[in-house]
Amino acid sequence: MRTCLDCIPCFFKQALEAARIAGADDAVQRRILNEVAVILPDFRMEASPPEMARRIYWIVRDTTGVEDPYHAIKEESNRIALVIYGQLVQKLNSGDPLLTAVELAIAGNIIDYGPKNSVDVAGELEKILADEHLKIRQEQSRFFQYQAFRDALKKSKTLLYLADNAGEIVFDRVLLEVIREKFPAVKMRFAVKEKPAINDALEKDARDCGIDRIAEVISSGSDAPGTLLPLCSESFRKIFFESDVVISKGQGNFESLSGVRRSVFFLLLAKCPVIARHIGCRVGDVILLHHTGDR
Amino acid sequence: MRTCLDCIPCFFKQALEAARIAGADDAVQRRILNEVAVILPDFRMEASPPEMARRIYWIVRDTTGVEDPYHAIKEESNRIALVIYGQLVQKLNSGDPLLTAVELAIAGNIIDYGPKNSVDVAGELEKILADEHLKIRQEQSRFFQYQAFRDALKKSKTLLYLADNAGEIVFDRVLLEVIREKFPAVKMRFAVKEKPAINDALEKDARDCGIDRIAEVISSGSDAPGTLLPLCSESFRKIFFESDVVISKGQGNFESLSGVRRSVFFLLLAKCPVIARHIGCRVGDVILLHHTGDR
Repeated sequence: MRTCLDCIPCFFKQALEAARIAGADDAVQRRILNEVAVILPDFRMEASPPEMARRIYWIVRDTTGVEDPYHAIKEESNRIALVIYGQLVQKLNSGDPLLTAVELAIAGNIIDYGPKNSVDVAGELEKILADEHLKIRQEQSRFFQYQAFRDALKKSKTLLYLADNAGEIVFDRVLLEVIREKFPAVKMRFAVKEKPAINDALEKDARDCGIDRIAEVISSGSDAPGTLLPLCSESFRKIFFESDVVISKGQGNFESLSGVRRSVFFLLLAKCPVIARHIGCRVGDVILLHHTGDR
Repeated sequence: MRTCLDCIPCFFKQALEAARIAGADDAVQRRILNEVAVILPDFRMEASPPEMARRIYWIVRDTTGVEDPYHAIKEESNRIALVIYGQLVQKLNSGDPLLTAVELAIAGNIIDYGPKNSVDVAGELEKILADEHLKIRQEQSRFFQYQAFRDALKKSKTLLYLADNAGEIVFDRVLLEVIREKFPAVKMRFAVKEKPAINDALEKDARDCGIDRIAEVISSGSDAPGTLLPLCSESFRKIFFESDVVISKGQGNFESLSGVRRSVFFLLLAKCPVIARHIGCRVGDVILLHHTGDR
């Protein structure tokens, strides 16, 4: 997905937020915004938004000297999500556990684990699982291709799961556990980022959240907040193209892989109007999109 | 009010919106954003946001060659507001007409007259006049200093009213009409912008909306979307400082005059989080603020 002009104001907003999270004072925040302004004219709109985001987070890192500004937020996100892990598993008891687990995994994508919002986790979760949302999903079945997803898993031997944020990965773990139970023959891999990229999960997060006990945790080889294949490691790309099923979580992975020539199941909440417009859905929609990779 | 770092992403958003309203294609929109990026590092944060906004709209005008991008929107805004003028006047029949007229004038500041929202005018109006809003206002009386406003009018011989947007000025007219009826001795002046500044009212708008029949319409002498005194004409500044009462409408005028050394009554809806924080109120609050001008 190419960058949209509407992404440009948002780049500055993200830079400012990251600068503040890195503890920069006003003068340093301003310097960071000025540096984003300097690189902006050279940025190609044909590139996907995570390419610019990656450069922005470099600026924040280099200017503040803080290697991983979101470290504390990620730790806290994992902690909160692990606290409610038991509740998540209990939700699987009714109806179709795979469907519920998919819903939970997408729900994990909505929750903002920022310190201010931590108390709302349970509330957000209830909202996303409420009847209203399920109704929306059923109405818009072309953006929730659950049957294709289930069928693909049935036939697969290898699965690659592209992680998104820390904390959210506890929700992914629930889905992986259901897949393991339903389809025990599937070899599962869980890909995290190689180096800090906003609040994206790293290898340590995956271990802290117990993912390594059910899937092989691998690295994308990159520090992009998404999956920019040319920047990923050779070994990752091989796994990406050779896996029977690829599950991609969140907006960053969608933005960077929406045009890829292989089938991918995109699980996300359409939180941004540009992405919603690209998909053809509404902001807030629950998306399980089967990208076939055909041209 | 100085510019806040949070205003910077918003500058790009405003530039993009104005570029689109001016009919720029994608390439020209991009060029405009790049030019904003070029001037950003030199912008002094001690300046008020309308100073940057003014430069942004210059870029839009110079790049697109469109002298008044918001012309059609302003005409449409006036038209819609004039259609409901009769309804506005009817609302004055109950309770304190001056208070209701102040509420209406502030209500006029919330309505987005953009073509998409034109149907919502009546709805927005009802919302702002609903009990809930009145309650909020009474609770937060330090941001709604109606008594001081009324007292100042009683004692005044000259009034200067600083206009904000086209369309909205029909609501201002209703307030001016009530003031004329209650305080017939007050000489009223209504200041508009000299040249196009976003959707701010110009002299023609004031005439089209019938303001010239109740007040002397004057020009600020400037094209800034606010009242930047050093850019205003000498004759305007004289009137500004010599008038007994100054009523300032909207955010742009507040941003540029919040530190001025004279008393001003600011009537606005706090639509932006930066302004709400500056005032100490919540976003959406109805504000009638008596700025005394004392240091």
